[in-house]
Amino acid sequence: MALTFALTTASLNAQTSDATAIRALLDKQVADWNRGDIDSFASGYKNSPDILFIGTTINHGYDQMLASYKARYPTNARMGKLSFSNLEVQPLDARFATATGNFHLERSAADGANADGHYLLVLEKTAKGWKIVRDDTTLESNVNKK
Amino acid sequence: MALTFALTTASLNAQTSDATAIRALLDKQVADWNRGDIDSFASGYKNSPDILFIGTTINHGYDQMLASYKARYPTNARMGKLSFSNLEVQPLDARFATATGNFHLERSAADGANADGHYLLVLEKTAKGWKIVRDDTTLESNVNKK
Repeated sequence: MALTFALTTASLNAQTSDATAIRALLDKQVADWNRGDIDSFASGYKNSPDILFIGTTINHGYDQMLASYKARYPTNARMGKLSFSNLEVQPLDARFATATGNFHLERSAADGANADGHYLLVLEKTAKGWKIVRDDTTLESNVNKK
Repeated sequence: MALTFALTTASLNAQTSDATAIRALLDKQVADWNRGDIDSFASGYKNSPDILFIGTTINHGYDQMLASYKARYPTNARMGKLSFSNLEVQPLDARFATATGNFHLERSAADGANADGHYLLVLEKTAKGWKIVRDDTTLESNVNKK
């Protein structure tokens, strides 16, 4: 019983530590975004051809993800001011976790206007720390869901 | 080298077998849906309070997922005829995988009209076989993405 308890506590501590690290990663992405640094923002994703970045189409790989961001957000004004809310991090196992939350983008009408939506991320604990390997982000305006 | 090759082949065979099992699960879901059997369709999800079913809001747990489906699709005519395309299954490790694809729903105008969209699923290999543990499905009409 004591051993079980110790292992359970260790496992819970590891989960808490993972969730804290994932929240720190997303906080860093928000700060990178709001500084206009897309390259640093993108380093939150795993640099792999296998990652998926899902927009109106399904993009494969780090390079497509980064190109998509740069095409859609060519200036700091288009990037606007990003914030996340309702963030929930849920471990799948020791190596993978998911994160869900809402985003808000504050922008002038001329630069695309404000936007709100939500996302599902899958994250992997890599040698370089937690990295996003799947990103499905949806704008909520005019969206109906199955 | 021979051992490495053997292990790699075994690993690839396991991945192929997992992908085949996941495709069979999704084929079964389509058949269940088109028969109007939401309960059988829903058995493709893990019966757990921890699963996430992401629509216009983020729903937690099997019961909320099933209630959401039943509220949105009260009749066979509202369910319409479902088909999937461009299905891609990608293993994360031996226990988790993701699947992406497009869906098409064929319905009369009176029953909600046709619909198209895409999805990201996270699946877990459970004692009862592969089950969906995260589902983020988006209708593509009027959707802009980050």
